[in-house]
Amino acid sequence: MPIREGDLVLVYLPDGSTYLVTARPGKTLGTHKGNLDLGDLIGREYGDLVQLSKSPAYLLEPSIEDLVMKVQRNTNIVYPKDIGILLLATNIRSGCRVVELGTGSGALTIALAYAVAPDGRVYSYDVREDMLRVAESNLRRAGALDYVELNLKEPGEPVPVKGADAVVLDIPAPWEEIETIKAAIKKGGRVASLNPTYNQIERMAETLRGNGFVMIRAMEMLCRPILPRQGRTRPVQQMVAHTEFILLAVYVGETAEGFEEDED
Amino acid sequence: MPIREGDLVLVYLPDGSTYLVTARPGKTLGTHKGNLDLGDLIGREYGDLVQLSKSPAYLLEPSIEDLVMKVQRNTNIVYPKDIGILLLATNIRSGCRVVELGTGSGALTIALAYAVAPDGRVYSYDVREDMLRVAESNLRRAGALDYVELNLKEPGEPVPVKGADAVVLDIPAPWEEIETIKAAIKKGGRVASLNPTYNQIERMAETLRGNGFVMIRAMEMLCRPILPRQGRTRPVQQMVAHTEFILLAVYVGETAEGFEEDED
Amino acid sequence: MPIREGDLVLVYLPDGSTYLVTARPGKTLGTHKGNLDLGDLIGREYGDLVQLSKSPAYLLEPSIEDLVMKVQRNTNIVYPKDIGILLLATNIRSGCRVVELGTGSGALTIALAYAVAPDGRVYSYDVREDMLRVAESNLRRAGALDYVELNLKEPGEPVPVKGADAVVLDIPAPWEEIETIKAAIKKGGRVASLNPTYNQIERMAETLRGNGFVMIRAMEMLCRPILPRQGRTRPVQQMVAHTEFILLAVYVGETAEGFEEDED
Amino acid sequence: MPIREGDLVLVYLPDGSTYLVTARPGKTLGTHKGNLDLGDLIGREYGDLVQLSKSPAYLLEPSIEDLVMKVQRNTNIVYPKDIGILLLATNIRSGCRVVELGTGSGALTIALAYAVAPDGRVYSYDVREDMLRVAESNLRRAGALDYVELNLKEPGEPVPVKGADAVVLDIPAPWEEIETIKAAIKKGGRVASLNPTYNQIERMAETLRGNGFVMIRAMEMLCRPILPRQGRTRPVQQMVAHTEFILLAVYVGETAEGFEEDED
Repeated sequence: MPIREGDLVLVYLPDGSTYLVTARPGKTLGTHKGNLDLGDLIGREYGDLVQLSKSPAYLLEPSIEDLVMKVQRNTNIVYPKDIGILLLATNIRSGCRVVELGTGSGALTIALAYAVAPDGRVYSYDVREDMLRVAESNLRRAGALDYVELNLKEPGEPVPVKGADAVVLDIPAPWEEIETIKAAIKKGGRVASLNPTYNQIERMAETLRGNGFVMIRAMEMLCRPILPRQGRTRPVQQMVAHTEFILLAVYVGETAEGFEEDED
Repeated sequence: MPIREGDLVLVYLPDGSTYLVTARPGKTLGTHKGNLDLGDLIGREYGDLVQLSKSPAYLLEPSIEDLVMKVQRNTNIVYPKDIGILLLATNIRSGCRVVELGTGSGALTIALAYAVAPDGRVYSYDVREDMLRVAESNLRRAGALDYVELNLKEPGEPVPVKGADAVVLDIPAPWEEIETIKAAIKKGGRVASLNPTYNQIERMAETLRGNGFVMIRAMEMLCRPILPRQGRTRPVQQMVAHTEFILLAVYVGETAEGFEEDED
Repeated sequence: MPIREGDLVLVYLPDGSTYLVTARPGKTLGTHKGNLDLGDLIGREYGDLVQLSKSPAYLLEPSIEDLVMKVQRNTNIVYPKDIGILLLATNIRSGCRVVELGTGSGALTIALAYAVAPDGRVYSYDVREDMLRVAESNLRRAGALDYVELNLKEPGEPVPVKGADAVVLDIPAPWEEIETIKAAIKKGGRVASLNPTYNQIERMAETLRGNGFVMIRAMEMLCRPILPRQGRTRPVQQMVAHTEFILLAVYVGETAEGFEEDED
Repeated sequence: MPIREGDLVLVYLPDGSTYLVTARPGKTLGTHKGNLDLGDLIGREYGDLVQLSKSPAYLLEPSIEDLVMKVQRNTNIVYPKDIGILLLATNIRSGCRVVELGTGSGALTIALAYAVAPDGRVYSYDVREDMLRVAESNLRRAGALDYVELNLKEPGEPVPVKGADAVVLDIPAPWEEIETIKAAIKKGGRVASLNPTYNQIERMAETLRGNGFVMIRAMEMLCRPILPRQGRTRPVQQMVAHTEFILLAVYVGETAEGFEEDED
């Protein structure tokens, strides 16, 4: 199927550098290996080879991972290593209604949108209007805006959503939103909270324990790239050591007296 | 929404143990904390508390992660930590057509099915008829069979699928299926191969390099559980250290002369 | 050099199991592969092969790592992965005088003893007399007792040592010993505190900051075994995920006003 | 004890930067925070605070870890995280005679020297004369040269040492030195080989298996720094993901028929 105007293209160079662009007449991509006329992409196919002045390049279809990693960011983003397990653990799938507190640059929002598509919906909130504008632009470019509603929200302010399948939080003080979560989530729904410090997940875990959540657990994901090379395969020398801890729980409305969870 | 006959329920006990069952009159779950009449689940809600003879228990809606981890297994399964990033990196999303070589117990197949639902399709192949029967049973129980075609296939034998969005392999000698992959995948499509030894991913990476694939990379995912407990939060003491390396690539049909990929 | 009466021997079987024994007439080692007369070891050499009834076995010279891992333990021990870096970071070397708070089973004490030998000394304290007896027995067997003084000590009670090169702590509330540390350590000396939870190292780091310590840092060590096998090399499937965090600092007596340490 | 002329001093600034210098009249250290007269250090004490023009600084006694990390390097060095466990596993202690193949910049050599001091000896070999000069300079500065003999050696050329307690290798093709190792090591002695790729440790493990070595095992060490900060403790964001695998074995002279080692 040929690339059409407005389609996203990942331009991939031999040195491993990539550029996320939109096929559009009158636009040009400038790289350290030469320019690429983005109108010329229309009618080409994903997988095609094109020639920049100093290098060949491939036109690839961007993956969700690519879309996430290529957002224009003003803040730390949630990484694919964390998003992948989060989606499986929170049971976010096609058709789900998901509340996201802390839109940020919209990286996680893109992945949530594609996970609930075509019939689900992501209701995403941030306290900063400028972040919402950044996220909107990122979501539009990634083709994910149709599945997302972006809204400004004060800390602690409730959201109008009821019966959400899942609530995902990426904010510094998630415990301040405990009433927001409880009012928005369905009974049996799942919560994931992402935070960089031990202190935050400990405090949020305590808050969840006292508010009708069970199956509370946390984890950290490490993604270690490996270089698979003939006769000299090894891990890379530098890696991301830490982004955020992932805290998970299920809402049951009220916790049974004496329902103690086991501890290692 | 009440639980109906045939719905899956994850029974969750205070000690952290879980049981995946189907709501069905005339069936009983036996646990170390007492029995549960599975007909009584019908009409209850996810999140409800029930009473076994020796313990309370919650009725939870199983997540995709739960469904994957609860397959009846004759073999090693692919773990959620690996499935999550695989889905994002291979761009498998709602509507995709995916070929899986190496059905095994069907754990990964379940996640693929839910990722492509409702309109996509997973074509999954195995060389062992007994494994296909195990997988079929697991897929049926997980409610994922509608999106999957299971078929027997000899090693090296081509598959009838053309233009697949992605091909996922979990077999000991993936390089023997290189022609199968090339015939089934669309130009620009993505491949993921899972293997426990570095030798396998090194050999498969070489095979992909010589057969029109680019953006070849590998990684390993580590999931480290954390115990978030008031005043004494720490990682767990034992963890899964290794399952499989993940090898990723994009098919472009033919590789440009001198398109050398950079190496760390 | 032949093995003499009283020498330590590590008996190594083909299945990887090992036994730490002392060459001694009239004693017998019983294993799942048959018995070994420990008097017969006298006069043999390290590296020799002997025959049990159901298996061959090698007589090896135990390493410090072996001695540490083979202590009779009533408690968690400090692992070689942590001891190795601790010795280098605290500058514990031949001739040093070291204070250890929290003898426990004496595993770390053995390594400290061999590190300061032949002219240094380890002053090790515990609040439990029964632990001191266990440690003494372990140290004697490991040939390390000559370099160690074991003493009972109440929590918070000072120790008579002055000008120690380093103080090493493996106790639940190391901050309660801050005055003990300051009174025992030389100016410029180094401190290492081992604790399983982040809460403990956070609190101890704060205590050190307010008490004349600088270069405060922490780390965790992960040791991942690899199976190096022809054509199928891979990491092991299960590993120790966590033992203790290691907190390190240098004593300077009083901290300069405004000497702020940078933070990532 | 006052700092004397020729003593090593680690100058530590509030931003965490450190400088390894030698107390010496007529020399000056230049830093981004001002200069320090190195003659003025004489007579001061470790732990003292000095004032640069733009910052205070502490005079610290360098640890072995500091000495290792501060070598002038033309090559990758062996890291403390690997050195620590290597010393314990190879049983290198005060009094040992150790052969090192691959001196490199001498970082590991420094740690070996301090481990065998005062009565042991390190015999270190390199194929490059320029590296030996770099190493000699590093060892002299670190006060470790008295315990080390540095020599040029061709690949495969034997060394004159007999009965060494341990042989440590940090060279690209350690299998080419298998006869060198066997001729130099005592029966029951221990070998450690450091290499960055899976392929190298796999090949070296095979070579050792066929040459009278047992208890062959490998590992990788990960050191993850933690920031212990009041109310916001977390791991650092970037870390060293890989340096070298560590391969370990014990020499027994000849391996028993059928002495098969178990495999996970």
